Amino acid sequence: MNYDDIAKQFENLPAADTDAQNASSSREGNLTKPAGSLGRLEELSAWCAAWQGRHPAALDNVQILVFAGNHGITAQGVSAFPPEVTVQMVANFASGGAAINQLAAVQGAELRVTPLDLDTPTADFTVAPAMTEAECAAAFTTGFDAVSGDLDALIVGEMGIGNTTTAAALACALFGGAAADWTGPGTGLDAAGVALKTRAVAAAMERHGEDIGDPVHALRCVGGRELAAMAGAVLAARHRRVPVILDGFVTTAAVAVLEKAVPGALDHCVAGHVSGEPGHRRLLERLDKAPLLDIGMRLGEASGAAVALGILRCALAAHNGMATFDEAAVSGQVGS
Amino acid sequence: MNYDDIAKQFENLPAADTDAQNASSSREGNLTKPAGSLGRLEELSAWCAAWQGRHPAALDNVQILVFAGNHGITAQGVSAFPPEVTVQMVANFASGGAAINQLAAVQGAELRVTPLDLDTPTADFTVAPAMTEAECAAAFTTGFDAVSGDLDALIVGEMGIGNTTTAAALACALFGGAAADWTGPGTGLDAAGVALKTRAVAAAMERHGEDIGDPVHALRCVGGRELAAMAGAVLAARHRRVPVILDGFVTTAAVAVLEKAVPGALDHCVAGHVSGEPGHRRLLERLDKAPLLDIGMRLGEASGAAVALGILRCALAAHNGMATFDEAAVSGQVGS
Repeated sequence: MNYDDIAKQFENLPAADTDAQNASSSREGNLTKPAGSLGRLEELSAWCAAWQGRHPAALDNVQILVFAGNHGITAQGVSAFPPEVTVQMVANFASGGAAINQLAAVQGAELRVTPLDLDTPTADFTVAPAMTEAECAAAFTTGFDAVSGDLDALIVGEMGIGNTTTAAALACALFGGAAADWTGPGTGLDAAGVALKTRAVAAAMERHGEDIGDPVHALRCVGGRELAAMAGAVLAARHRRVPVILDGFVTTAAVAVLEKAVPGALDHCVAGHVSGEPGHRRLLERLDKAPLLDIGMRLGEASGAAVALGILRCALAAHNGMATFDEAAVSGQVGS
Repeated sequence: MNYDDIAKQFENLPAADTDAQNASSSREGNLTKPAGSLGRLEELSAWCAAWQGRHPAALDNVQILVFAGNHGITAQGVSAFPPEVTVQMVANFASGGAAINQLAAVQGAELRVTPLDLDTPTADFTVAPAMTEAECAAAFTTGFDAVSGDLDALIVGEMGIGNTTTAAALACALFGGAAADWTGPGTGLDAAGVALKTRAVAAAMERHGEDIGDPVHALRCVGGRELAAMAGAVLAARHRRVPVILDGFVTTAAVAVLEKAVPGALDHCVAGHVSGEPGHRRLLERLDKAPLLDIGMRLGEASGAAVALGILRCALAAHNGMATFDEAAVSGQVGS
């Protein structure tokens, strides 16, 4: 699609299927356990049914899409790793050696990795828009088209040296605040490195101040290809009624573009985890998303969401498989 | 074993295998990710290796032991459900209809349920010791003997109407504080019910004040059969170097007996989750155990630990399967 077509995809977003959601809640109340005692597993079962548009929901076909991009902002010394690591890690994904390969396998999900013009980094966004309109639209479209229609759940993730700086700039553009509110050590910066990163984000806000009031423009000016692709994929998932598990800071910053464009656009998404990268907690608070896991992961690659997929599987297993009070001849609560 | 033999089992507890732990930490540092970026997954891999006494660790053979008991304290109106539900739920476990049946299956663990003299509830501990020495020893021994030697990990859990009151009394006996610090709604008490429960715990502290300074005596006087069995199983796991994932409030109160008897006795245990039952968070803080999950579960049956097992599987999958920087020809951190 063209750059101007992106906004058209924000129209006519399907709502949750309340019949499926109600069917889930109704069954939940009859299962052999005290009401509410499975905690967030109960909420996940209803949410999954609501967005799959069926009850019982299922998780037979789960896909993990990882997008990789390179970032001109690395010229500012904002990453602990050199930019060539992006392409090296894509090779590592291809040969099965990365964390997400192991996690996808153990969690029973299909992994697809899409490198996005790695030999053409985005522009250094302290001096120019990160992407042209054509570049941004191409990356968004790649993500949008990567989502097939028969998925039971989608996970998106990323790899891109420099992209926690990109995410910090995008979060700052979307939600305001000081640059330092959104920056952190990323893959392992020391305090001097974080200060460089903060200055880069502040410079980007200065440079693009007038252009980034619109969420899609913010994505183009201070985002990156893998972020645009993730936003496209999560929007496509909404149109196709596919529930999404969100990963970490970079993923969440990318999809926040959708929520800023259309409030409620992320209702089909659950926060898989909160990252050790400090800006992520702040971002999830702004999006009113409570993470399922808080175990200090900060790798990206969809790794935190992949771990969280196991919690969703547990939720559906319990909900779909348990006996009701009547079936099991178990007495209900006294006086109720 | 006899009641006096329980204390003998606290002697000569094996320590963690530091060679296996160091081998895990060493490999972790060479895997293709920024140092520390898998968060607590990295800690879990090393902990699992340390207690299995081998590297790489494995999780092929995981057992969930659920013990069920009945409680005389239910005469005080401390549960939202009638006491006959304990035996009804044991039947539900046997026919595969409970939450833990579904969770064990989806997580690839073997479930064994052991009912403990359900037709002979413990005594009402506001008026007498909950168990005789023989009853306590028998339950402890049942748990101790239930652990086989070839397990890769153990999960223990419980079912017993009234047993969050038992757990509150045991926690209060072991850690002090006011009765109200440890009581909560359990399966669904209203405020009046929680007040009854708090009075029952306070009455128990009054009744047994002189006898419960010793942890095992506390277990006998205000505990229950399933709590004694869980303490026995977790102690047996320590002797057999089997890592343990702890479940909720009742499980944690039961095994706290071991830690109070021998500081460090729970070093082979990780807290699978923190329950929605408020005393659990306080108890984990006293034991210095950070939970892996905090998703409002409060069912018991080992259900929270069973969900957490998936996180441990992810940890080992990533640790054991990832490529090293050298293997994948990925550049390391700049300047390191």
